[in-house]
Amino acid sequence: MAKIGKLAVVGVGLIGGSFALAARRANAVGRVVGVGRSRANIDRARALGVIDADADAAEAVRDAELVFLAMPVGQTAAVLAEIAPHLGPETVVTDAGSTKSDVVAAARAALGAAVARFVPGHPIAGAEHSGVAAARADLFDGKRTVLTPLAETDAAAAARVRELWRACGADVREMTPEVHDRIFAAVSHLPHLLAYALVHDVASHASAQELFDYAASGFRDFTRIASSHPEMWRDICIANRAALLGELDRYEEVLREVRALLDSGDAAGLERLFDGARAARNRWLERR
Amino acid sequence: MAKIGKLAVVGVGLIGGSFALAARRANAVGRVVGVGRSRANIDRARALGVIDADADAAEAVRDAELVFLAMPVGQTAAVLAEIAPHLGPETVVTDAGSTKSDVVAAARAALGAAVARFVPGHPIAGAEHSGVAAARADLFDGKRTVLTPLAETDAAAAARVRELWRACGADVREMTPEVHDRIFAAVSHLPHLLAYALVHDVASHASAQELFDYAASGFRDFTRIASSHPEMWRDICIANRAALLGELDRYEEVLREVRALLDSGDAAGLERLFDGARAARNRWLERR
Repeated sequence: MAKIGKLAVVGVGLIGGSFALAARRANAVGRVVGVGRSRANIDRARALGVIDADADAAEAVRDAELVFLAMPVGQTAAVLAEIAPHLGPETVVTDAGSTKSDVVAAARAALGAAVARFVPGHPIAGAEHSGVAAARADLFDGKRTVLTPLAETDAAAAARVRELWRACGADVREMTPEVHDRIFAAVSHLPHLLAYALVHDVASHASAQELFDYAASGFRDFTRIASSHPEMWRDICIANRAALLGELDRYEEVLREVRALLDSGDAAGLERLFDGARAARNRWLERR
Repeated sequence: MAKIGKLAVVGVGLIGGSFALAARRANAVGRVVGVGRSRANIDRARALGVIDADADAAEAVRDAELVFLAMPVGQTAAVLAEIAPHLGPETVVTDAGSTKSDVVAAARAALGAAVARFVPGHPIAGAEHSGVAAARADLFDGKRTVLTPLAETDAAAAARVRELWRACGADVREMTPEVHDRIFAAVSHLPHLLAYALVHDVASHASAQELFDYAASGFRDFTRIASSHPEMWRDICIANRAALLGELDRYEEVLREVRALLDSGDAAGLERLFDGARAARNRWLERR
């Protein structure tokens, strides 16, 4: 794979920082220029050697061979509009947004014909920690990265992004933006919403202090994702609102089913549901 | 603390087995006799040195100084009725059930005056693994055990159980059965129900296979408790039904609130809720 001379990373947090570190580890990149809103975070990124320099978005993307967007998805439209006039004729742009339909719409609107060199992506690797201090070169090792190339995507641009992700350790898959958003609404966005809702529920109890006092490891693991970045998850939920509302409706229907079993004291029915869920989860764990 | 000559453990699974191992580690117990439904599990308990012998319940409790009940809570009434005629005049009985009001009612019904030597308990230590093979002498180290002694509980019996739990490494707290059941409905029973419900939801999707294929660590942690023992959790949910239905109603109300924010595209409202939940969870983690 030809080495990338200049990589611009917009949003040097956990994902953007880890991508830069993984690309450096693979010796796949020359100079890395970072763009960020927080001076403290950008200074830390320089101190940690994650980026070589920082600049504003327009300056950073100039002469860049690859632009990697890793801000919260809600900023995608604004960032694309800002960088569009400064992209070179060969520059490839990719992103790490957790939603894809909205990002694709924003890219089509902002980039015009240059959308052919936009390769939408989503690395399936996160952590409840955010910021560049949590970045790691091995964050993507063995993890999936989903790319959702469009009908108009340039094959060479898609291949370049695919190869770079592989060099960063990822297992690359491809699907449409719509299928992506449907899948992640169910297995990622909904659980985040449910975990935030449970902590909100407990915290708003009159006896919240006493409840937290007896919360144990089951509660800790169930709510781990409620320590995720609020702004990032606000944007994801809003961006994938239609699919997420559909999944929330389904889940509320399941809760009504569970409630009816409980209310009628249907022990056999409850056990059947618990047993089926445990079996499905254990099969999933074995296959992973 | 005076050493217990004979300990009878009814239900030699993760909790019963770990209690026997922890009591042995503390040199607090002489002979351990186990009672179990599964021949294979009881043979494993003997092979692992968790118990010295096994017997039926009537035989096991005869001459026992302490009887430790660690079966699924749904069996409590039947086991108490079975052992009641065979308890000695000094025998202390305690349990490890995750619900307490139902256990107390069963003890009052089965034991008559001997309920004075029944000390209801609940060690807050579990794991998604069950069976004696998962038992560990250090399972209770630094974990809470809640005791819910009754007005009629003999002070010496309560003290003996309290000391034994401390010798097993536990941090012992006391409260009423009603407060116990209210607290654990919120921070333990409800999350289990929600996790089972989410796995059931995903598994019953037309595209379940594809969804599981992209489920990642967030989903894994959120649903860890859905790999818990279905019979045990069926019994807990049924036994603590009233409190759990109350908590489920509260949670469904929170979900309606979240749904309204999402439906109306109220990004600021969503972020406020996420941010508040994250802050509450992080404060809890810092205090633990």
